[in-house]
Amino acid sequence: MKSGDSTTINVPPESSAVSKGKAPLLPVAAGPASSGGWKKGIAIFDFILRLFAMVAALAAAAAMGTSDETLPLFTQFFQFQASYDDLPTFQFFVIAMALVAGYLLLSLPFSIVTIVRPFAAGPRILLLVLDTVALTLTTAAGGAAAAIVYLAHNGNSNTNWMAICQQYGDFCQKVSGAVVGSLIAAMLFVFLVVLSAMALRRI
Amino acid sequence: MKSGDSTTINVPPESSAVSKGKAPLLPVAAGPASSGGWKKGIAIFDFILRLFAMVAALAAAAAMGTSDETLPLFTQFFQFQASYDDLPTFQFFVIAMALVAGYLLLSLPFSIVTIVRPFAAGPRILLLVLDTVALTLTTAAGGAAAAIVYLAHNGNSNTNWMAICQQYGDFCQKVSGAVVGSLIAAMLFVFLVVLSAMALRRI
Repeated sequence: MKSGDSTTINVPPESSAVSKGKAPLLPVAAGPASSGGWKKGIAIFDFILRLFAMVAALAAAAAMGTSDETLPLFTQFFQFQASYDDLPTFQFFVIAMALVAGYLLLSLPFSIVTIVRPFAAGPRILLLVLDTVALTLTTAAGGAAAAIVYLAHNGNSNTNWMAICQQYGDFCQKVSGAVVGSLIAAMLFVFLVVLSAMALRRI
Repeated sequence: MKSGDSTTINVPPESSAVSKGKAPLLPVAAGPASSGGWKKGIAIFDFILRLFAMVAALAAAAAMGTSDETLPLFTQFFQFQASYDDLPTFQFFVIAMALVAGYLLLSLPFSIVTIVRPFAAGPRILLLVLDTVALTLTTAAGGAAAAIVYLAHNGNSNTNWMAICQQYGDFCQKVSGAVVGSLIAAMLFVFLVVLSAMALRRI
C-alpha cells in the first residue's frame, strides 16, 4: 500500500493540465497575430514608398516647372528663350505630376489606416484602384515628355525637326532630370500596387 | 384491414428522407458555392476583357506598323515618303504593342486556371503583377506616340518643328488610330488590375 501511494505522488498534476489545457489554445492565438504583423509590415512599407513617390513626383514637377533658359544673344525684337510652357507636352507633364503629388499627400491618411487596422480591406482596395489610375497618369506624362526630350536631344531628319539641345543645354538637362523623376515615381507606383495586392490576398 | 393498408400506402417514405436528410446539407454547400460563383464570374469577365485588350493591342500595332504613305510628287533623287520607322517613338510603339499582345495571348491559360479554380490566389497574383507591368508599357508607348502625333498635327512654332500632317494626311490618320487603340488597351488593363484585386480580397 505504501509503494502504491508513492507512485501516485510522483505524477505532477499541473504539468498535465498545462500540456492538455493550454496547448490547443496557443496556435489559435498565434495564427492571426503573426499574419497581422506581416500585413502591418506591408502597410508600413507602403507608407514609406508613398513618401518616396511623393518626393519623386514633386521633384519632377519642380524640375520641369523651373526649366527656363534665356540665351545671352538677342536681337532688337527677339530674345532666344526656352521654357517648359513652349511645349504643350511639358505643360501636361507639370500638371500631371502636381496632381500625382497631391494625390499621394491625400492618400497618406488612408495608408495610416491600413497600418492601424491591417485587416481592413476597404481602404486597401480604394488605394489600389487610385494607385493604378495615378500610375497610368504618371507613365503617360513621363512617356510623352520622354518622347519630346528625345526629339529635343536628337532631332529627326525625316521630318525636319531640328535638335534644340545644342543651343539650350541647361534647359534640356533640367527637362531630362524631370523625366527621370517621373519614371522613378512610376516604378514606385508599380511596387505600391503589387504590395496592396499581396496584402489583400487571403491568409 | 383493407382501409389500414390503404393509409400506409398514402404516406410516401421517400419525401421525409429528402426533407430531413438533405435540408441541413444544402446551406453548408451553398455558402462557398455562391462566393465561388462570384469569383468565377469575375474570372470569366477577366478572360473576356483580356481578349478585348489583346484585339486592341494587336490593332494598334498593326495600324502603326502598316502606316506608310508615299506622296505622288517626287524628284529625280528623292521621293517623299512617310513611314512609322522614320520616328523612333513609333518603332518603340510597335514593339511595345506587339509585346503586350503576345503577353495577353500567353496570359489566357492562366486566366482559364482562375476560372476553373476560383479560390487559387497564386495565378491571380501573378496575373496582377504582370498586368501592372504591361499597363505601364502600354501607357508609356501610348503617351509617347500621342506626344509625337500631336506634334505632327500641330507642330511647334517655338522650336521650329513644322506640322507634317498637311502633307501626309493618311499617315497621320493611321497613326492617330493606333494611339487610340493603345489607350483603349490601357483602360482595359486598369479594369483588369482592379478586377484581380477585387477577386483576391477575402470573402
